[in-house]
Amino acid sequence: MRNFSDNEAQDIIATAAALADAARVATLQHFRSDGLTADNKEAARFDPVTVADRLSEQRMRAILAERRPADGILGEEFAPVAGTSGLTWVLDPIDGTRGYLSGTPTWGVLISVRDADGVIYGVIDQPYIQERFEGGLGRAEVNGPMGRRALKTRPARPLSEAILFSTFPEVGTADEGAAFRRVAPKAKLVRYGMDCYAYGLIAAGQIDLVIEAGLQAYDVQAPIAVIEAAGGIVTDWAGKPCLDGGRVLAAANAEIHAEALALLNG
Amino acid sequence: MRNFSDNEAQDIIATAAALADAARVATLQHFRSDGLTADNKEAARFDPVTVADRLSEQRMRAILAERRPADGILGEEFAPVAGTSGLTWVLDPIDGTRGYLSGTPTWGVLISVRDADGVIYGVIDQPYIQERFEGGLGRAEVNGPMGRRALKTRPARPLSEAILFSTFPEVGTADEGAAFRRVAPKAKLVRYGMDCYAYGLIAAGQIDLVIEAGLQAYDVQAPIAVIEAAGGIVTDWAGKPCLDGGRVLAAANAEIHAEALALLNG
Repeated sequence: MRNFSDNEAQDIIATAAALADAARVATLQHFRSDGLTADNKEAARFDPVTVADRLSEQRMRAILAERRPADGILGEEFAPVAGTSGLTWVLDPIDGTRGYLSGTPTWGVLISVRDADGVIYGVIDQPYIQERFEGGLGRAEVNGPMGRRALKTRPARPLSEAILFSTFPEVGTADEGAAFRRVAPKAKLVRYGMDCYAYGLIAAGQIDLVIEAGLQAYDVQAPIAVIEAAGGIVTDWAGKPCLDGGRVLAAANAEIHAEALALLNG
Repeated sequence: MRNFSDNEAQDIIATAAALADAARVATLQHFRSDGLTADNKEAARFDPVTVADRLSEQRMRAILAERRPADGILGEEFAPVAGTSGLTWVLDPIDGTRGYLSGTPTWGVLISVRDADGVIYGVIDQPYIQERFEGGLGRAEVNGPMGRRALKTRPARPLSEAILFSTFPEVGTADEGAAFRRVAPKAKLVRYGMDCYAYGLIAAGQIDLVIEAGLQAYDVQAPIAVIEAAGGIVTDWAGKPCLDGGRVLAAANAEIHAEALALLNG
């Protein structure tokens, strides 16, 4: 992975913060809006999730066009932009649209920067709570309701003492679900429904594992940057890099990662 | 149900707010604390959930002893206090201890006041988000990151268009789980893991149904007050009052309540 000058690193971090700030405003503009509850036909044609998703990504792309025109962009909602710098911004303007639609506070905005070798820096932002997890370029921090704190994953403990999260109890296809259920009953506690917030909880040292399937590149790259910066490990279910999404095993440490990986493939 | 003078109503509301404020401080004092992540034996004997639970309830009880000495108290952590006023405060200092232990933002503090006829007023407070749902005595409001807003449940829609929440996919005993699974596949969207926050989402017009089993009186009375004040309905799975907990069906309106009730008993 390339070395960044202090100036370059600071510019990437500041640009990511500007994107996340803009996405907070755009996503909250429609969050819990009346369009979600109105039941007349006119309102039914208004899809606040799609509107907020697109507005959020458009605002982020506009900032990148101005501040980092040489970088590429891969976003969920619009066509990729090829860059010349070797850096690509990977954007998910609303991760967890079903959580957003339901009014929960556990969806998020995912922002990351990568080069050919991997993810350099990432942000998981929860606009409603006003909480931001960031990792990479020498940083591993959360800034939220309790102030700014260092991120550090939990020390090793056996799976029987561990907390496992996944967004849906079904976890992907039938085969993927069966693999998940080789792990889940052995954990101390299994919880569902947290969307990308669960990756923040690994980085913050609160939980041990997240197992998911069917993810996209923009779902997973920011969590990889944040969790690895905090001391954790994120791979696919074969133990390989999962920059492009798919099946994801995110772990607080090497020991619990190995224990879960063996069961997923058991 | 008795009539309250404006002064009496205001004193109940102000006292509940004082309890919720005190519980916010007490619960956040240990939330995401190092005790949760430390792995040495000394730290393992420290259970931050229990400590926070008790501290939170003790602080609330101290306020009630000073401000409302004639009222009774029913709380999760300590022995009941008999009152002489006919009013009883029902306290759950941390609803969703597993969510609290995992660092999620969806556990809450539940506070309600009841008389012999039913619940008069209730509060669902989420300390980390600093969001408070309240209902009863003429009020139905949420005060949180987007300011103060009126609470109003969603208008009727068929179950096939509805959003259903439950905290755990297992939902109680085998029979209770089977009843839940007569309803869940017919909903548009089913989500898990929100603890008491899901009841706030019904009151806020974001979701249509919450179905749970095995609840205690202190788990359900504040949600009943908040949801009914916002226009919703909360009963047990036989359609009867569920002040004492047990099996709970919370619904945004009479139509979706009837549709879910028929399937639970189908």
